[in-house]
Amino acid sequence: MIAVLKRGATKADEKKVIELIEEAGFSAHPDTGAETTIVGVVGVAPEKKVNLKEKLQVMSCVDKVVVISDPYKLTSWNFKQDKTVIDLGDGVKVGGNELTVMAGPCSVENEEQMLETARVVKEAGAKILRGGAFKPRTSPYSFQGLGEEGLKLLAKAREETGLKVITELMDIEHIDVVCKYTDIIQIGARNMQNYALLKEIGKLDKPVMLKRGMAATIKEWLLAAEYVMNEGNHQVILCERGVRTFGEETRNTMDLSSIPLVQQLSHLPVIADPSHGTGRWELVIPVARAAAAVGADGIMVEVHPHPENALSDGPQSLKPDNFRLLMDELSAITNSLKSFRSREKKIAYE
Amino acid sequence: MIAVLKRGATKADEKKVIELIEEAGFSAHPDTGAETTIVGVVGVAPEKKVNLKEKLQVMSCVDKVVVISDPYKLTSWNFKQDKTVIDLGDGVKVGGNELTVMAGPCSVENEEQMLETARVVKEAGAKILRGGAFKPRTSPYSFQGLGEEGLKLLAKAREETGLKVITELMDIEHIDVVCKYTDIIQIGARNMQNYALLKEIGKLDKPVMLKRGMAATIKEWLLAAEYVMNEGNHQVILCERGVRTFGEETRNTMDLSSIPLVQQLSHLPVIADPSHGTGRWELVIPVARAAAAVGADGIMVEVHPHPENALSDGPQSLKPDNFRLLMDELSAITNSLKSFRSREKKIAYE
Amino acid sequence: MIAVLKRGATKADEKKVIELIEEAGFSAHPDTGAETTIVGVVGVAPEKKVNLKEKLQVMSCVDKVVVISDPYKLTSWNFKQDKTVIDLGDGVKVGGNELTVMAGPCSVENEEQMLETARVVKEAGAKILRGGAFKPRTSPYSFQGLGEEGLKLLAKAREETGLKVITELMDIEHIDVVCKYTDIIQIGARNMQNYALLKEIGKLDKPVMLKRGMAATIKEWLLAAEYVMNEGNHQVILCERGVRTFGEETRNTMDLSSIPLVQQLSHLPVIADPSHGTGRWELVIPVARAAAAVGADGIMVEVHPHPENALSDGPQSLKPDNFRLLMDELSAITNSLKSFRSREKKIAYE
Amino acid sequence: MIAVLKRGATKADEKKVIELIEEAGFSAHPDTGAETTIVGVVGVAPEKKVNLKEKLQVMSCVDKVVVISDPYKLTSWNFKQDKTVIDLGDGVKVGGNELTVMAGPCSVENEEQMLETARVVKEAGAKILRGGAFKPRTSPYSFQGLGEEGLKLLAKAREETGLKVITELMDIEHIDVVCKYTDIIQIGARNMQNYALLKEIGKLDKPVMLKRGMAATIKEWLLAAEYVMNEGNHQVILCERGVRTFGEETRNTMDLSSIPLVQQLSHLPVIADPSHGTGRWELVIPVARAAAAVGADGIMVEVHPHPENALSDGPQSLKPDNFRLLMDELSAITNSLKSFRSREKKIAYE
Repeated sequence: MIAVLKRGATKADEKKVIELIEEAGFSAHPDTGAETTIVGVVGVAPEKKVNLKEKLQVMSCVDKVVVISDPYKLTSWNFKQDKTVIDLGDGVKVGGNELTVMAGPCSVENEEQMLETARVVKEAGAKILRGGAFKPRTSPYSFQGLGEEGLKLLAKAREETGLKVITELMDIEHIDVVCKYTDIIQIGARNMQNYALLKEIGKLDKPVMLKRGMAATIKEWLLAAEYVMNEGNHQVILCERGVRTFGEETRNTMDLSSIPLVQQLSHLPVIADPSHGTGRWELVIPVARAAAAVGADGIMVEVHPHPENALSDGPQSLKPDNFRLLMDELSAITNSLKSFRSREKKIAYE
Repeated sequence: MIAVLKRGATKADEKKVIELIEEAGFSAHPDTGAETTIVGVVGVAPEKKVNLKEKLQVMSCVDKVVVISDPYKLTSWNFKQDKTVIDLGDGVKVGGNELTVMAGPCSVENEEQMLETARVVKEAGAKILRGGAFKPRTSPYSFQGLGEEGLKLLAKAREETGLKVITELMDIEHIDVVCKYTDIIQIGARNMQNYALLKEIGKLDKPVMLKRGMAATIKEWLLAAEYVMNEGNHQVILCERGVRTFGEETRNTMDLSSIPLVQQLSHLPVIADPSHGTGRWELVIPVARAAAAVGADGIMVEVHPHPENALSDGPQSLKPDNFRLLMDELSAITNSLKSFRSREKKIAYE
Repeated sequence: MIAVLKRGATKADEKKVIELIEEAGFSAHPDTGAETTIVGVVGVAPEKKVNLKEKLQVMSCVDKVVVISDPYKLTSWNFKQDKTVIDLGDGVKVGGNELTVMAGPCSVENEEQMLETARVVKEAGAKILRGGAFKPRTSPYSFQGLGEEGLKLLAKAREETGLKVITELMDIEHIDVVCKYTDIIQIGARNMQNYALLKEIGKLDKPVMLKRGMAATIKEWLLAAEYVMNEGNHQVILCERGVRTFGEETRNTMDLSSIPLVQQLSHLPVIADPSHGTGRWELVIPVARAAAAVGADGIMVEVHPHPENALSDGPQSLKPDNFRLLMDELSAITNSLKSFRSREKKIAYE
Repeated sequence: MIAVLKRGATKADEKKVIELIEEAGFSAHPDTGAETTIVGVVGVAPEKKVNLKEKLQVMSCVDKVVVISDPYKLTSWNFKQDKTVIDLGDGVKVGGNELTVMAGPCSVENEEQMLETARVVKEAGAKILRGGAFKPRTSPYSFQGLGEEGLKLLAKAREETGLKVITELMDIEHIDVVCKYTDIIQIGARNMQNYALLKEIGKLDKPVMLKRGMAATIKEWLLAAEYVMNEGNHQVILCERGVRTFGEETRNTMDLSSIPLVQQLSHLPVIADPSHGTGRWELVIPVARAAAAVGADGIMVEVHPHPENALSDGPQSLKPDNFRLLMDELSAITNSLKSFRSREKKIAYE
């Protein structure tokens, strides 16, 4: 962290700045240039820096404070040198060498829909079944999900197909019931900064998939993961699902560059959700292919045997035929890229 | 709602579209133009339209679906013709003819700070005291608030000064303790779409101030208010606190036009928070003046007797002298505009 | 286009709306629902609709006007059923079945740099050499390019390697000199809505690559292409180079979904520029792979033999080794996807 | 500027960084902390820093480069300690103590419209008449303006009313004809980074109003002004006209906080254009009031005697009655705030 003093700041000003820094337990390194004086802040207590930064900003002799070190602890490669692999049992992993596909309907609607979809996605090669039982809807007048009834249908589909299950948890009250049925807890974009909820799931021994908030920076997203990890639960998967921009033609703007960027900053696996990222099934296939090519650890995609009858998100759901095409294309891409891994690593560490 | 068929859609396609609309309980009004056919959807069950819209979008013969009517019910002027006035007792109101000012520190820190601030803001003319006891911080390593201890200090300041109190509620678990001490529950930007929380506070008999989410459209904001009102609690205040844009120089971009826009759509009062909207105290005064001039029903502003010691948000807090200046300027502006009200109304209804 | 009348609009209001529509040369199709009346506008003169829309919006009885048909003419699949292929001679095409790669330095700096880069990119498989001679820089104090001297060096590199050349044109004054040396004129993001320039290049017989503006919607981008095509020049390539969002970690946010979206709306080829889209060389390789997988018709990428000495954009330039790796990966991806084309088409027309 | 070295950077790395800085003519101030080494760059040649920054970023041992000093020269208070006042003669000034109002139609349409509007705005107190003769329209099929014919009508209206005139210049070719008739050249948002045009008008002795680009940061906006000033023309007015965000309900999002922010950074006057900033006449009045209260040096507003017949921007044009109301409100606000100036200054320099 560096405090930049205003032009015309006096030696007395500089002294006050240094005192403040030292009182906070850091050491101060002043440096006077031709036009401005800067004071570097050195120390190893990042958790105290937020407050010190604000205190410095308040001083009338300080022009601005520039933060240099990243605020990450547990999510960072500095904390853990091996990539995090979430092992769900039966050979299903997220973050390993395979592209893990999670597929299924937006909402669990009924037994027939759930079982039919589960069979389709299993057969096409998906490892994890998605389906919402508690639905965060923009309008209170929209379908809100089947609740525990839906969770039971997910469990039934798991039993029949052997797929693992992921479903959304929206509030602390439902932690027990959701955990009873699911293999991965999904935290949706709207709850990415619901800190009370993050702290509670941080106490569980259950993998969590944390979606990026609609307008969350990479920093806020990783710090949300820190909320979970700081309570002890280190089994976190991140999910890019598009951010909000001025774009009018798609539901969101898929920020695929966030995937390699996060992978450079963090050991956590990152997957892509092109269904919410685009909102239009015709775009889901090409964007899912792009996510595989960009290096995502997995893909989550909405599939519905009869989108025209879906209770939610029909327009962004793939029909079975399209999903099978996508799975074949994803295999082709990941296979074509396998042989480049060693060359890529070499360059990265050059 | 209007379904626009693709070029080349056949009569059989049109028939299928009409059937779907009628099955959903609406009536269909087809209209064939030179190049495209459109089918109007008429009916009075807005809550069913979300799903019908998606079903129509899925049909291969449908190019797009255009929604015409607004999704609002309880927040709309169609529901209630009188402006909502939140009456907090002792003559303190939000939404009446006065500009109501809420002021105080970001966080409750200790008794001295709280009482000193309360006296300052009371004397300068504020009616409501703000102060956070439960703090939503981006990093888990930042100060998280004093909890109930903080609430008690707020209550003590209320007792001494007669100010009403507003404080943030972050989760369902703390509803009882927060309600015990506060006059208005504040729901922060990060929780604007925490629907479980919104539903619970919808069951209370306590005024609620709902901040706009960082990337929330006007529609999403009003629908979040509908979540609260739909459960029975109609005492909702809206608060514009800036939205996230590409701007790098301010914490957020204050969207002041949202205030008259919401006032045209809804009977709910709308206030402005220039402290979070700008993040810089030098900008708080001019932007607060602008909020008064744009017609806000109130202003929420952070004041701290010693910003350099604040545990949070020091850089955006006004010192007492600046706050007094602001209060005088706000009075001057609102007084100068009073005589225009009848001319404004005349034009609006012309 | 549909005019939605306000609640309470009278028959007389409706009549006035109909008259306005008919005066403008369109036919009016009124439809009265339970709560609102809508009036459809039918006719075949899209160029008159912008003005009619505004006139209707002004009427006090009109709530809003909803545009249904797209404003595109020459860029649309309705105008031309075959994909546009830009043929640059010697077998170099953009928009055909191959992924065409354009590569080279941000700025032309000197002969050695230009020839060295040209040899590298030629050998690795690029078909087109990029290099800026006139540079649009945010600050007037930054390097502004070598001008005609730079164009001569580009031409020299073309002569030696057989590569085609693309370079940016910034103003009408330099049209002749740029055209003398280049095979494709590049119009930068900042000039996407420089309509005087677009009209002039519309009169040329020279391919044009039109970059998407920093905050341009798909509609604005295609309409900018219409400006060029409307003057007679139909050899237009579009280039996605990232849009501006709240993201702080990358130079722009690459909107890869725009590529398949534009391909669904228009017959024009669309390429991706991951160098400007990300601003960081470590992200260029994965995002370029993603662009290939999403179906881009080409890739433009910055390559510099010694990025540490580059006069501009060093941080986003690939070194030769990295560029060769990228080219091999791009080949692998495009080859792996070739066999799926017929299945994709079948689904699209299902 | 500060280069932050990567963890694990060696002494040899540090030496290379220092050499690079010194070669560029700056002095290097290394500082080694517990975890990272930073190297400060000190010197007085800001125009060389852009390139040095990129060179440092390219080095493999450098984690990031943080820019500390602002890149402004001529626009900055460091360059000129008095506020710039643009004197148009006959007592009409922009940047003085008055709020200067520019008003008139979007497009010049015909003599009757122009003269009628000029009389209305003159009588209500505006000092400057606006009207577009060359129109930048998103679609090539929309009305493109009357050209010189329109300029003549503006001049005629000036002759009759004594109002000064402002009109948009879109390209270098029309500089002479526009300058012949106008008192202020307007550069539109789409041309804010049309550097060739900026350089040309920099050579003129004619005031320029530079609108903020749709997605321009404050820095880019001021640097665009530097392009003009660097050529010698220091008569620059800045105009905030809204930026592009995810907002769907208004044409743009008016960023009113940019006005005091720019006034803190620069001596140039800044005005507000609430017509383009909102796109809806019902919002123009409140947002214009807010602009006055925020401290804008002027307001530009669209007025049309018959918006329902306007050839462009009818929906955002004020009718004469509304404009008169607005002028009265603006007077009331500015009068009410006059007495606070000395208190404001005192606080600012505290």
